Amino acid sequence: MKEISRRGFAGSLLAGAVGAALDTSSLRTAVKTESVTAGRAAISARWQPHLPGIWKAQIGVPEQSTPVSLRAIGPSQDKLASMHSVSAPPLMDVEGCSTTRGVEIMLPLAAGELVYGFGLQMYSVMHRGSKKTLRVNADPKGDSGDAHAPVPFYVTTHGYGVLIDTARYASFSCGSTRLHKNHRAQDEPAAYTEAPPLAQFDEAATMRVEIPNAKGVDIYLFAGPTMREAVERYNLFSGGGVNPPEWGLGFWYRCYLNSNTEQLLALAREFRDRKIPCDVLGLEPGWQTHAYACSFLWDPKKFSNPPAMVSSLKQMDYQLNLWEHAYTHATAPNYHALEPYSGDYEVFGGLVPDFNIPQARRIFGDHQSSAFLDLGISGFKLDECDNSDYTGGWAFPEFSRFPSGLDGEQMHSVFGLRYQDVILEAFNRANRPTYGLVRSSGALAAPYPFVLYSDLYDHRVFIRAVINSGFTGLLFCPEVRDAESVEDLIRRMQSVVFSPLAMVNGWYVQNPPWKQVHASWETFHEREQNPGNFDEGWEKVEAQCREVLGWRMQLVPYLRASFAKYASHGTPPFRALIMDWPNDPNLALVEDEYLVGDRMLVAPVFAKQTSREVVLPRGAWCDYWTGEAVEGGRKFKVQTPLDRIPVYVKSGSVFAVAEPGASARSPESRRLTVRVYGDGSIPFVIREQGKTAMEISWNNQTGKGSFSPGKPSGAPYTIVDWKKMGS
Amino acid sequence: MKEISRRGFAGSLLAGAVGAALDTSSLRTAVKTESVTAGRAAISARWQPHLPGIWKAQIGVPEQSTPVSLRAIGPSQDKLASMHSVSAPPLMDVEGCSTTRGVEIMLPLAAGELVYGFGLQMYSVMHRGSKKTLRVNADPKGDSGDAHAPVPFYVTTHGYGVLIDTARYASFSCGSTRLHKNHRAQDEPAAYTEAPPLAQFDEAATMRVEIPNAKGVDIYLFAGPTMREAVERYNLFSGGGVNPPEWGLGFWYRCYLNSNTEQLLALAREFRDRKIPCDVLGLEPGWQTHAYACSFLWDPKKFSNPPAMVSSLKQMDYQLNLWEHAYTHATAPNYHALEPYSGDYEVFGGLVPDFNIPQARRIFGDHQSSAFLDLGISGFKLDECDNSDYTGGWAFPEFSRFPSGLDGEQMHSVFGLRYQDVILEAFNRANRPTYGLVRSSGALAAPYPFVLYSDLYDHRVFIRAVINSGFTGLLFCPEVRDAESVEDLIRRMQSVVFSPLAMVNGWYVQNPPWKQVHASWETFHEREQNPGNFDEGWEKVEAQCREVLGWRMQLVPYLRASFAKYASHGTPPFRALIMDWPNDPNLALVEDEYLVGDRMLVAPVFAKQTSREVVLPRGAWCDYWTGEAVEGGRKFKVQTPLDRIPVYVKSGSVFAVAEPGASARSPESRRLTVRVYGDGSIPFVIREQGKTAMEISWNNQTGKGSFSPGKPSGAPYTIVDWKKMGS
Repeated sequence: MKEISRRGFAGSLLAGAVGAALDTSSLRTAVKTESVTAGRAAISARWQPHLPGIWKAQIGVPEQSTPVSLRAIGPSQDKLASMHSVSAPPLMDVEGCSTTRGVEIMLPLAAGELVYGFGLQMYSVMHRGSKKTLRVNADPKGDSGDAHAPVPFYVTTHGYGVLIDTARYASFSCGSTRLHKNHRAQDEPAAYTEAPPLAQFDEAATMRVEIPNAKGVDIYLFAGPTMREAVERYNLFSGGGVNPPEWGLGFWYRCYLNSNTEQLLALAREFRDRKIPCDVLGLEPGWQTHAYACSFLWDPKKFSNPPAMVSSLKQMDYQLNLWEHAYTHATAPNYHALEPYSGDYEVFGGLVPDFNIPQARRIFGDHQSSAFLDLGISGFKLDECDNSDYTGGWAFPEFSRFPSGLDGEQMHSVFGLRYQDVILEAFNRANRPTYGLVRSSGALAAPYPFVLYSDLYDHRVFIRAVINSGFTGLLFCPEVRDAESVEDLIRRMQSVVFSPLAMVNGWYVQNPPWKQVHASWETFHEREQNPGNFDEGWEKVEAQCREVLGWRMQLVPYLRASFAKYASHGTPPFRALIMDWPNDPNLALVEDEYLVGDRMLVAPVFAKQTSREVVLPRGAWCDYWTGEAVEGGRKFKVQTPLDRIPVYVKSGSVFAVAEPGASARSPESRRLTVRVYGDGSIPFVIREQGKTAMEISWNNQTGKGSFSPGKPSGAPYTIVDWKKMGS
Repeated sequence: MKEISRRGFAGSLLAGAVGAALDTSSLRTAVKTESVTAGRAAISARWQPHLPGIWKAQIGVPEQSTPVSLRAIGPSQDKLASMHSVSAPPLMDVEGCSTTRGVEIMLPLAAGELVYGFGLQMYSVMHRGSKKTLRVNADPKGDSGDAHAPVPFYVTTHGYGVLIDTARYASFSCGSTRLHKNHRAQDEPAAYTEAPPLAQFDEAATMRVEIPNAKGVDIYLFAGPTMREAVERYNLFSGGGVNPPEWGLGFWYRCYLNSNTEQLLALAREFRDRKIPCDVLGLEPGWQTHAYACSFLWDPKKFSNPPAMVSSLKQMDYQLNLWEHAYTHATAPNYHALEPYSGDYEVFGGLVPDFNIPQARRIFGDHQSSAFLDLGISGFKLDECDNSDYTGGWAFPEFSRFPSGLDGEQMHSVFGLRYQDVILEAFNRANRPTYGLVRSSGALAAPYPFVLYSDLYDHRVFIRAVINSGFTGLLFCPEVRDAESVEDLIRRMQSVVFSPLAMVNGWYVQNPPWKQVHASWETFHEREQNPGNFDEGWEKVEAQCREVLGWRMQLVPYLRASFAKYASHGTPPFRALIMDWPNDPNLALVEDEYLVGDRMLVAPVFAKQTSREVVLPRGAWCDYWTGEAVEGGRKFKVQTPLDRIPVYVKSGSVFAVAEPGASARSPESRRLTVRVYGDGSIPFVIREQGKTAMEISWNNQTGKGSFSPGKPSGAPYTIVDWKKMGS
């Protein structure tokens, strides 16, 4: 434990340097938020110690139902206690006011301080100078703050994070507004200039947050001292990061929605026969009714004997994931039991369970357990749990009422989370792990074994979502569906294998996209008439995809190590470059590269790019594929032939890759080739339950490696080869 | 005056047939809104007679600042009195409730009843089954309700309109939500089915409106009996439609932002020399400061002698329109006078005048008068008066406060309107007409001589905006800027000449787009270095554009007639087909055709279309270009060569077209060719001040026409030719 003392500034209202990155001598410019303007009842609140490195301030009278008050998983207190100790809050006292509209909060932003976070934002990464209104929306079309999973948490390059504990659609004006001089204490700079990116933020400003309909709010402040540590504290406060089961890190394939048992089994056999690695198959049990509510009963026309089907799939080493949404049809076995615990508005002709009530979670979960978990189902895809303004406004309205006291607005902010609780609690009761998909989430989500996805499909938008998810304890799957071209398909496959969940989602295509690249949602009925009409030369495309899926299978041990660190330290396994190098302005706006784990940087390539610019953080790096040394701290152009994307590892990395097998639990996946990059000074470690479960090191002087196989869960690993890369 | 008696239904809560279109025998199915659910304080309100054909109901205690309470122009009471008399409100009593979130209103939607309106919506025309949240937004990217000019007014195919008199960002769930059966009085149908378009609305539902932050609201109900009459009543309630000066109906060209006097005069001469008709030139006086606030002082580097420049332009018969926005920089002459009447937040480093206060309007307007109106300026382009969530959130925040008592949310809903008042009042004081541009507007805007525009640019989005504008008293200009191709340029030009304001906006291109088609915003700095680099063969493109601009000049007399009817009867000059044929399901979802005036239908063509489907309403029609008879009441495909777009007129139309001249006031424009379509039974009439100012008729039996030249304002018309079309 390192003790970082508070460095005081005479006359400064900011607890200066604690907010600055430890590894620099940059000290924050003193900033003063403006005094509260006339017409508002000013409230000031002091930061009170809450947990190690975390402070809390209360403005007015907070609402009863908030992300923190409704949480089902507690903070990882001991892990928080083991982090750097910080003696004073990294921000001045918070100011706010209560108005007829709700609550306003004011927090300072220093010169050059950049803002990140707010959940699964799809259209920008850096938010200083903009406004974000955090509405839950299934179809976010612009950079307004609408998101599948908005999170009222932001973190800045000055090394602290702020959680506004509200389930309301709060608005964050991130230094984009300025009080007129008659209403402020000092001369604030203009918020808008035509200066180049970043230069316009060279003066202090104010983060202004408005929370509608509330009379007060709790605010949590997370110390760094680095940006990444602030995020880690937030994730540990959330309960620590998820550590998914190993099979969750293999390849997933979601089958055509109308597949029956025979078609499903045929696809399962095809993958094994044609050496397509696959761990998880997703299917639609056909339980949506005409109006789309779920009965949670298998469609007997498609699935006459589900236990036999699941058993056959298990024998082929598949996990099975079932599609569902929570809106319960009157024909569902638990409909009447759920009725008293549901909202006053229906969705898709089904009731909306109030999962804030333990009984509702239990009634819903018990059916899941007896009908599906007991059958051997490994998880669920929790669809439609967000909200739509754009596609017909199908969701329960914001003015709905729920028995737990929440209105529809609040419920939207937590519905995805509580739905995850239902499933997680059912698996916990069965003492089995799960890893699934969910379309909405929110604050404090880090411990949940669910990965977000979207019906949007722009490849760049998906990569931005992967990057943004890491600021707020989320995970995102840039799933592959159909494609514009073979090139587009391959480029998307090359991205998804470097993500938290490597999945092709074939719900509207009868055959894997490598057999019918262009099959689109619009034409799927047509394709249905012509299922065997494969693209010419599809075997070559399949081979390319098989190759890329092999990259994924090779990566599983590294992903295990990365997720283990998410669980133990809260370190996001997928994250923006700026999080590790907050003082490098070249990284501030990067939206097409990200870090994986502690040593890897991925630079996806998009269709039609024959080259791309890569920005490398400072330090020595190596090409992941060749081991070639690459100098960091610069931008450069690389050619991007279709068979690779630029991936780099820190020079010095020891990097264990598995042999691709049929699944992440196949014998092949336990045979490691150890790649040594540079001097091999950074050992490869998998930690479990706080202990080192496997360690692979390299002694550059002797040119020999060492292997402590330990006892990682699952079958033991062996090393089949050592490979000094780049030589 | 026709008296339409109320036809009662035993047991029906709806005032049935008054809401149905007069020309059919369809009677509305009885509908009952659900009783108010638990947890809400129910309020019921009766419709009270307000003005002829208009009722008002009050729920709770309305806010002080609303579109109606803040209006600067009163209703056209005598014109309302001259419409069909309607004895009973066309809707049952309204129900609502007050909650901690605001106010909720419930209104019935009958089986098959379709909903239109909500202002300048860009992404859909028909709103039944969807949700719209009416936020003011400069960059609406999706179909959420965000708009430059949202209007809380809707009209239905059952022939009535509803205005929710609020300046809040109200949410309208247009039959998209349904209460769970335990919370409603009867079995409501599912809101969501996978049925084909429209069939899903074959059951009754509820329009639910939520108004945030309010304790109550007034609701206005506008009788039809037809859909168009309901809109007309709304427009007359707003004060009647605008009748722009004739020069406003010619061609407009906005010049390159950095143009100086010499460049401007050169362009003005070029247009005259090369026979490009043009009435209005738009320019940027260069008064935006570095932070973008306006000083309202000419940039002396560009404009050393504005009076001389304006005088030179006037001599060439040009009107001059100046760009500005309202955010006033400290260097503006009226800054200190405005300061006490401005909001607490700045925008672009300038103050935000509170134009709800007459003194602020006067102080701002007086500078406009003395500095620009007196110089001969004909109008302004009022930019940036909306709000942005998407492009940096530059606007004053929703939680701003203004001296008049409005908060920022309310102010956004009325800011565009009150800004228009400033300018209109200044021109009224000078007893001169104006016609200009504005980027935001709202409820009750019909009398304002301003046309909306957008920085968006999708051609289909622009046509949809033209169509939607007609439901709520707005006008929209689908301006032409750069283009993807010559074809795209021509297609856009062919649309804009059939719009309320025919404009090329060259603010970021040094030369007219026919000389440099591809010049884009992104490359304009590059183009600036190379201003003389014209496209090869540009003269041919110029000739095509000249031809299309000629169509506009031909159309000016018809546009005069159409706008005159807007002023006298409230009939929108540009509107959706459904408005005139509300019972034709083929027209319900048409988003690419619209009506102009009382006899013309325009079907724009988009780049890359070599043919298109046309839907014609029932009746006999003629091809506008050839006179060929075309049967209505059907869909058909037409070829679309680049030199034309499909335009139709009602068979029987007498249609006067002017000779294209240099401007709408040139001698040529007074020489009419009269086209006679079909039997010529529909005379061509221009009415002014309630009297027939010009009438052209055709006697099909004698084969002769008659002309009553009357005294239309401006120079007299002569008829140079009669042309029996199609023969």
